[in-house]
Amino acid sequence: MCCGGRCCVSMTQCFFDYSTSKVLVIRSKSVGTLNRFCQAVVLAYIIGYVCVLKKGYQDTDTVISSVTTKVKGIALTNTSDLGLRIWDVADYVIPPQEENSFFVLTNLNITPNQTQTRCAEVSVDTGLCCCSLSEILVTLCPGVQTGRCIQFSVTEKTCEVLAWCPLEKGNDPPDPPLLAEAMNFTVLIKNSIRYPKFNFNKRNILPHVNSSYLSQCVFNRTTDPDCPIFRLGDIASEAGEDFQTMAVHGGVMGVQILWDCNLDMPESWCMPTYTFRRLDNKDPDNNVAPGYNIRFAKYYKNGGKESRNLVKGYGIRFEIMVFGKAGKFNIVPTLLNIGAGLALLGLVCRAFWILKLYD
Amino acid sequence: MCCGGRCCVSMTQCFFDYSTSKVLVIRSKSVGTLNRFCQAVVLAYIIGYVCVLKKGYQDTDTVISSVTTKVKGIALTNTSDLGLRIWDVADYVIPPQEENSFFVLTNLNITPNQTQTRCAEVSVDTGLCCCSLSEILVTLCPGVQTGRCIQFSVTEKTCEVLAWCPLEKGNDPPDPPLLAEAMNFTVLIKNSIRYPKFNFNKRNILPHVNSSYLSQCVFNRTTDPDCPIFRLGDIASEAGEDFQTMAVHGGVMGVQILWDCNLDMPESWCMPTYTFRRLDNKDPDNNVAPGYNIRFAKYYKNGGKESRNLVKGYGIRFEIMVFGKAGKFNIVPTLLNIGAGLALLGLVCRAFWILKLYD
Amino acid sequence: MCCGGRCCVSMTQCFFDYSTSKVLVIRSKSVGTLNRFCQAVVLAYIIGYVCVLKKGYQDTDTVISSVTTKVKGIALTNTSDLGLRIWDVADYVIPPQEENSFFVLTNLNITPNQTQTRCAEVSVDTGLCCCSLSEILVTLCPGVQTGRCIQFSVTEKTCEVLAWCPLEKGNDPPDPPLLAEAMNFTVLIKNSIRYPKFNFNKRNILPHVNSSYLSQCVFNRTTDPDCPIFRLGDIASEAGEDFQTMAVHGGVMGVQILWDCNLDMPESWCMPTYTFRRLDNKDPDNNVAPGYNIRFAKYYKNGGKESRNLVKGYGIRFEIMVFGKAGKFNIVPTLLNIGAGLALLGLVCRAFWILKLYD
Repeated sequence: MCCGGRCCVSMTQCFFDYSTSKVLVIRSKSVGTLNRFCQAVVLAYIIGYVCVLKKGYQDTDTVISSVTTKVKGIALTNTSDLGLRIWDVADYVIPPQEENSFFVLTNLNITPNQTQTRCAEVSVDTGLCCCSLSEILVTLCPGVQTGRCIQFSVTEKTCEVLAWCPLEKGNDPPDPPLLAEAMNFTVLIKNSIRYPKFNFNKRNILPHVNSSYLSQCVFNRTTDPDCPIFRLGDIASEAGEDFQTMAVHGGVMGVQILWDCNLDMPESWCMPTYTFRRLDNKDPDNNVAPGYNIRFAKYYKNGGKESRNLVKGYGIRFEIMVFGKAGKFNIVPTLLNIGAGLALLGLVCRAFWILKLYD
Repeated sequence: MCCGGRCCVSMTQCFFDYSTSKVLVIRSKSVGTLNRFCQAVVLAYIIGYVCVLKKGYQDTDTVISSVTTKVKGIALTNTSDLGLRIWDVADYVIPPQEENSFFVLTNLNITPNQTQTRCAEVSVDTGLCCCSLSEILVTLCPGVQTGRCIQFSVTEKTCEVLAWCPLEKGNDPPDPPLLAEAMNFTVLIKNSIRYPKFNFNKRNILPHVNSSYLSQCVFNRTTDPDCPIFRLGDIASEAGEDFQTMAVHGGVMGVQILWDCNLDMPESWCMPTYTFRRLDNKDPDNNVAPGYNIRFAKYYKNGGKESRNLVKGYGIRFEIMVFGKAGKFNIVPTLLNIGAGLALLGLVCRAFWILKLYD
Repeated sequence: MCCGGRCCVSMTQCFFDYSTSKVLVIRSKSVGTLNRFCQAVVLAYIIGYVCVLKKGYQDTDTVISSVTTKVKGIALTNTSDLGLRIWDVADYVIPPQEENSFFVLTNLNITPNQTQTRCAEVSVDTGLCCCSLSEILVTLCPGVQTGRCIQFSVTEKTCEVLAWCPLEKGNDPPDPPLLAEAMNFTVLIKNSIRYPKFNFNKRNILPHVNSSYLSQCVFNRTTDPDCPIFRLGDIASEAGEDFQTMAVHGGVMGVQILWDCNLDMPESWCMPTYTFRRLDNKDPDNNVAPGYNIRFAKYYKNGGKESRNLVKGYGIRFEIMVFGKAGKFNIVPTLLNIGAGLALLGLVCRAFWILKLYD
């Protein structure tokens, strides 16, 4: 906004020139009313949308979280393979710890006492006999073919394979699930969060929760909303799922912990909110490869000979997802947002008037 | 924009004053052309950059994802330590499950039948004999020194240590790798995603993929781009790596799944894109501590005496990384972006003219 | 800005009209000084805050990271249950690998030689006898009640349970911790990062770090700030914690790696910064359920009969968190930020003058 060729006789004089628009004042009730109405809309936008809804006067930060879990409960099973058997945490949580998630075994097919030897391939109804497989699918075989064909049953001959024998049978998982009692297992979820920008720490075991309450409470949205101990069956039913149905083939369940905090308010208002949702697909129309299962083995050695129990374990993986955003008053975003609001909507008002005046 | 000292006789009258700039209309072809050209640039910017490229008319959300994996395949090894041996999923995927990643054993050094006893320390060519180690490095020893010096071989004496004996030999990993067949293993990656703001769910097993296709397909960028089953060797070669070389010392491989979705378009256009990249360093110039390996043991008990097989397992860890951003039309960002575009570039135009007019 | 009803005789003429505000030039030293001062503030804001502090001329990207860890060290314990025993990596890192974290066992209560049978429930001082438990808490029992009441000790009778017997005793963890030597264990953290937008890769083993340095260095903030090998005791003390106290009940420790990079500068300026922080709560006032422990078992089979050693393992979980933002010059954000700065603060200056002139 410096002057051009006209006044460069004296640079100093020119430097202190101030140029402003000539202003025309219109004294009309109708025009004035519309003008004030437009300004009211601008103010309403800035106060309502920018300040109240979007909290534009706050600086924000996203949550950093650390989660540990501890499952409790026992189950009793009675099968022909294993006999009467008790399952405790060390048996059904595999692996014993994971970051932000845990897996609870709910159903299983066990193939006990496998050893490395040769045996007849299991005859599969689907026709997936290794003898007839193309090169690319040969890795789907349970073992390496020796090339010989041997008696599988009285009536049937199949390929001989070098494998962990006896081979896994490929049965469907038992229904009802073996560890149906997993429904009553409980899990203590300990979650510490931090908003680094505001140096704010909190955890989901709230200050008023004491040891004796924690030893006997179970989360309930209405009666015990602050208890960080969850019954697995409740998690499923809150997510709209039937635990027993889900337990048969396994699945993935999301435990979402939301920490939306307004740090201009008292610290005790910053509380976790728990929601539960099934993460894997259960739509029956489009459900190829349903559920969730893992294969693992326990290895034994007797007289120098190694054997193993192979377990195809169906279960529910619980993933704990922690979300959140905290806001706190800060002068910089306040100025920027109010400035931007005034600038943008001031222009809109002016544009509106220019169109209006030409009518 | 209220009036000052001049008119405060009547606040009401003053309240309805509307002041606007006096406008000068210049009727000149050259000035007018440049003015319209400047406005065309503004419009092109708003339409081209803000609307088309940046999709400024859309509200956006980032993806929430859940991944499960299932590896298939068997390998046959023949070593002096283990004899002929079959490896299946329960043997080479360690631990049996992880969140968003899986580890496939491709090579190993095994130290069988270790027991807790005393033995002579292995003589290391690098001179790292525990007898001579400073305090800070003593934790690198394989055991605790008893203080005695005993016969290690016919010609050499070393320190006696209390350790799991026999000690690990510290050999280089076998080359070619023992489980070279891991190249042909396949992995089914099941990925469910969610855009919470739009309540949109999808998974990478697309609606048109049926069970029979899934039982025999393998991902191929040109022929089977929708098959969620990946051959490990293909993942490596798409990332520009040689699987067999990588298998010797192990490594970390990233499987990136990108879900960039425009939710104003039909849902079926929202598709995953798979890319593969090696995550660890393989630059030969700067490659200290190359590869990836883990140490684990299988524990046995015979007649009350505990023994273990120690495995230094080299392998490839596959990390599945899910990215993505979805956009959907929303009136608020549309208005804000168009407003900001008009305001900013309107000012640029005006500034340009002020400079122009003074010439 | 097209004209209204007045001039539509000739659309072409009208199209090339250019309208600009009439400008009033005020030649006054005091007004001019204030005007230039206001402009100087605007410029200082744009240069200082937008350009220097916020680096508004840069396009930014957030980090993608891959972490692998390798723990080294041995510990010796001498307990009545286990006798003299050596612990190495395969014994105390459980599970052998995790993504972005690792767990080091520091203390344990072991219950050896458990078998599936019937035994008398342990009498607990807290009165938590299963015989008297309500339905909801029955999963806290160590086994399933048979309904009989049997001799637990000479003086006391308790419920008989079907469980892994003998039952876990529920003792407090040993203090000092069994694996107190874990303080001297070291961990090599390998971290590769990537800024995909700028195709920039780097890892925390810096180019000048060679193999021989890596074989004997330990991280020290002043003497060895580039060594990626950390002593566990140092991590704890940098976080302001006493390792031995923390080792008794376990805990969660965060290892934060910050990669804030200005990619307009030489690549070698982009360096990781390590900070350490305890993630779980240790506030003695509000510390229900303190520490971190996991239960796992080793399974043995002797003559067909399965037994297990149950371990309640206390330990420290180290979570490696990688943060970072990179910036690089880009013309689009530069223009947008300078434009926005000029527009917003130009308006502020004008508003200021309007108020001023009415005085």
